[in-house]
Amino acid sequence: MGGTASTLRALGSPAPAARTRRVVQVGAVAFGAPRPVVIAGPCAVETREQTCSLAREVLAAGADMLRGGAFKPRTSPYDFQGLGEEGLRILQEAREETGLPVVTEVLDVRQVDLVSRYADMLQIGSRSMQNFPLLREVGRQPLPVLLKRGMAATLHEWLCAAEYVASGGNTRIVLCERGVRTGWTAEYDRNTLDLNVVEAVRRAVDLPIIVDPSHGTGRAHLVPSASLAGIAAGADGLIIEVIGLKTRRADVLCDAEQGIRPDMLARVVRAVGQVRAAREEIEAARASGAEDA
Amino acid sequence: MGGTASTLRALGSPAPAARTRRVVQVGAVAFGAPRPVVIAGPCAVETREQTCSLAREVLAAGADMLRGGAFKPRTSPYDFQGLGEEGLRILQEAREETGLPVVTEVLDVRQVDLVSRYADMLQIGSRSMQNFPLLREVGRQPLPVLLKRGMAATLHEWLCAAEYVASGGNTRIVLCERGVRTGWTAEYDRNTLDLNVVEAVRRAVDLPIIVDPSHGTGRAHLVPSASLAGIAAGADGLIIEVIGLKTRRADVLCDAEQGIRPDMLARVVRAVGQVRAAREEIEAARASGAEDA
Amino acid sequence: MGGTASTLRALGSPAPAARTRRVVQVGAVAFGAPRPVVIAGPCAVETREQTCSLAREVLAAGADMLRGGAFKPRTSPYDFQGLGEEGLRILQEAREETGLPVVTEVLDVRQVDLVSRYADMLQIGSRSMQNFPLLREVGRQPLPVLLKRGMAATLHEWLCAAEYVASGGNTRIVLCERGVRTGWTAEYDRNTLDLNVVEAVRRAVDLPIIVDPSHGTGRAHLVPSASLAGIAAGADGLIIEVIGLKTRRADVLCDAEQGIRPDMLARVVRAVGQVRAAREEIEAARASGAEDA
Amino acid sequence: MGGTASTLRALGSPAPAARTRRVVQVGAVAFGAPRPVVIAGPCAVETREQTCSLAREVLAAGADMLRGGAFKPRTSPYDFQGLGEEGLRILQEAREETGLPVVTEVLDVRQVDLVSRYADMLQIGSRSMQNFPLLREVGRQPLPVLLKRGMAATLHEWLCAAEYVASGGNTRIVLCERGVRTGWTAEYDRNTLDLNVVEAVRRAVDLPIIVDPSHGTGRAHLVPSASLAGIAAGADGLIIEVIGLKTRRADVLCDAEQGIRPDMLARVVRAVGQVRAAREEIEAARASGAEDA
Repeated sequence: MGGTASTLRALGSPAPAARTRRVVQVGAVAFGAPRPVVIAGPCAVETREQTCSLAREVLAAGADMLRGGAFKPRTSPYDFQGLGEEGLRILQEAREETGLPVVTEVLDVRQVDLVSRYADMLQIGSRSMQNFPLLREVGRQPLPVLLKRGMAATLHEWLCAAEYVASGGNTRIVLCERGVRTGWTAEYDRNTLDLNVVEAVRRAVDLPIIVDPSHGTGRAHLVPSASLAGIAAGADGLIIEVIGLKTRRADVLCDAEQGIRPDMLARVVRAVGQVRAAREEIEAARASGAEDA
Repeated sequence: MGGTASTLRALGSPAPAARTRRVVQVGAVAFGAPRPVVIAGPCAVETREQTCSLAREVLAAGADMLRGGAFKPRTSPYDFQGLGEEGLRILQEAREETGLPVVTEVLDVRQVDLVSRYADMLQIGSRSMQNFPLLREVGRQPLPVLLKRGMAATLHEWLCAAEYVASGGNTRIVLCERGVRTGWTAEYDRNTLDLNVVEAVRRAVDLPIIVDPSHGTGRAHLVPSASLAGIAAGADGLIIEVIGLKTRRADVLCDAEQGIRPDMLARVVRAVGQVRAAREEIEAARASGAEDA
Repeated sequence: MGGTASTLRALGSPAPAARTRRVVQVGAVAFGAPRPVVIAGPCAVETREQTCSLAREVLAAGADMLRGGAFKPRTSPYDFQGLGEEGLRILQEAREETGLPVVTEVLDVRQVDLVSRYADMLQIGSRSMQNFPLLREVGRQPLPVLLKRGMAATLHEWLCAAEYVASGGNTRIVLCERGVRTGWTAEYDRNTLDLNVVEAVRRAVDLPIIVDPSHGTGRAHLVPSASLAGIAAGADGLIIEVIGLKTRRADVLCDAEQGIRPDMLARVVRAVGQVRAAREEIEAARASGAEDA
Repeated sequence: MGGTASTLRALGSPAPAARTRRVVQVGAVAFGAPRPVVIAGPCAVETREQTCSLAREVLAAGADMLRGGAFKPRTSPYDFQGLGEEGLRILQEAREETGLPVVTEVLDVRQVDLVSRYADMLQIGSRSMQNFPLLREVGRQPLPVLLKRGMAATLHEWLCAAEYVASGGNTRIVLCERGVRTGWTAEYDRNTLDLNVVEAVRRAVDLPIIVDPSHGTGRAHLVPSASLAGIAAGADGLIIEVIGLKTRRADVLCDAEQGIRPDMLARVVRAVGQVRAAREEIEAARASGAEDA
């Protein structure tokens, strides 16, 4: 990273075999431990009833954490922008009911304090990956940060964004791949999920990395395969958008095309555990340095 | 596909639950059956000794078929262009020794007959995906065809390329995703492996689809994870470049950066079987139509 | 734009021939009038001497406005971040000396007031194109806004960003194309300047649009041709980075590769006027509706 | 180019000031001379009447050469594939009537001889840029070659394709930029015309380079601006698709969206001459080496 001192481990420096991975703890949930973490929940917090019942459904399906947007970054100013602080209060209730720690997005430097009072982990969205004042601000507070990759960001730019956070003193950072923009794949998806970057991140820094198969595909019917592929590629977890059992897809206010149902989430959680076990062959080879012959 | 009659099943027409998948048989090897097919071998056929010993090594590692280029499409006219017919004879010997069926690239319409005399399956490379005379020519002969995706091809263009082959009467086609060109990921890979397309292909046509993690990453240390991710994403198999146990990487004439070693291939073959098993959760949901609620 | 009420004219609505173009005035400078506007100056304000002497040089070369960054969005937190308010004071002095109105970037919602006290026009950089709180904030103050396109932004996203500004009441917006990220052109440039978008913007909205050939190429030797091409493509102006006559390229703290010299700027200004005149053939056809037959 | 001997001048070798540019002559038409060459005609040769009347119209509008496809590379096998040899005969007649030299595409190695008997210049299309047997074949015959860039080709790959032609002995090569695939610009165009590459080519090799604003935009209303921008960017000419005065757009069999009318072509030809003159400021600076300070 430009030859300057870096808080995080610089790209490519240590030998793979020597690597220890940093574990980022959010309550009882551990990112970077062998067991994959599954974060699930609605795209946006719409109502108390929708959020709390969905929180119970994803808990039953095996999820470890709850996601949900109270402040939503929307392409158009005329789209639903989220419930704001009311949404944060609903997320807090859902946590109290289910015990699931909550991650939610902060997109305005002036709201970092507010969001921090309600959340267990702060999400920096793709559009904010190079919002440098915001990165500095979340770097100065103690909650862990979920840092999504920008939609055409290089690995260098992404890791430098993590450096902005870390340089403020907060190294509790989890990276999240969410698809890059290729454009010519629009017949079947909204973004191209870049799973090559998962291994590349693991070789570059010791931060945990998770995958967002919901934005990484933009289509509910592609999410299960993308989830399994993400874990197979070496990710430490997933963040998945879910639509409640009784919710009509047409009524969802935000990204209705990409939410899966709780029963499919349960299948994904089970399958993901087996996929992670299948990776042991590869992890063992890596630990012994065998892969680099 | 433009509203005209199509030999293959058109994009999006039948309901997912109703789908049967076409099995393409190459000798005893079945593409599109539950068990994933692993094709392995050198990038280019360089010598008899290199090819035959490597064929034995990949057989021991659990590969089902042998790959190897006799006619190589190289960016520069001054790079090694392959051994030509001599390379085909070496591949034939390797098959006789190991029993592995052989897939090799044909890139000139005038050589379809020649290559067909030696190969069990004809590969159409990425650069030839829209070489329409060549597609027509391989569509008029009986050997199965491995059709790689072009490096910035849309799904529609790729399936239309398959239609060129099918319209000649040959529907024994296996598709192969091998990475698309995004460019800004060059810090860590050569192409972006697009695994979203695997599910999209399975929904569009009944042809088998495999993944090329070697060109799809361009870096040996990314190949194992990409292989597992490919199968997790729903692919019917893999095509992997391998460097012989005793070969020095620096001596390889073509794509030296991306070949894995036979011992790593053996690990991948084992892991891939377990990953495929983990997919049963998802396949079962698909069969029941549950995923589309 | 999503069927909702829009302050700006929606994409594609009126017939081309009927179009009037909005003129955005910054002091005596008019964006959207027949004469192209040339904004020039350093990438970053580094010292008083550098900025003021360069301001005189670009004035002599024929520039209409002065650019220069006081707050710089830098990929790494360890790179030079700009002089901040001291930089704004220097820009103010340069304006007093030369009479050139000043455009400078604001990247933190908390600094909109501060920057507004010194600048004549506020720039929203590429990385901030979807910083929605910042867009709203500059939409609530009276200075005109230069809105750069994000590096992989669709036209829809860009125009929606303009809507965020306009919905606050400020419709004095000038759009700026500055290159999109393709990646595989890195041999010769840093971004691909997308000049097709200039006509597309002119057909979609009545806002002026200018081109940034400096970031749009990233290479000084490509800037003159890109400048002429931008005006030939229909742009209302250019924003060009310049390095002072006596400055050594190696001493420049930011984007040293892309600044042109004042004598080249003078040539560009002269050529640009002639190129604009050559467009009259096309403008006349458009006015008569002849192009759409 | 890989350290090996090269027939063409290698990337970046000679100092810009010292450069002479190669002139490629096609009858009386000179590519690489100061005056820009305009090639115009139908996308595909459909009928004798359509082609001959259009040839007269583009001659009247000021075009220097006639284009038109007899063998068409079409995405789907069920689309119109061109008239074949009958189309070549029609092009020959159009040339006899108008005196315009003819360029037409060859896409099958087995048809190089046939096409050569009728054409004055052979076009290698984008999809064939890495059809290496075809490149070698056109390199062994004497007609000049128009070599289009592949839709995601790097400059290196494109120049290596030219090397394939040159290594056969034929260095009468004209390069043609026709847009690259970005995908996310599909709201307003079919490809992103990459005009940065024009200067990059001029610095890398001494071959002439022209621009295809028809495929480079895919929309007739974007073609005039793209034409002027191409010449402003330093191109030696244009290749433009035209629809006859009396032809209904809906009746055109191929790429109906992108053809301009002969009266617009006449305006473009006039404007292009003035734009070229405006470049003298820049050419003079280049000749003196001033641009690289």
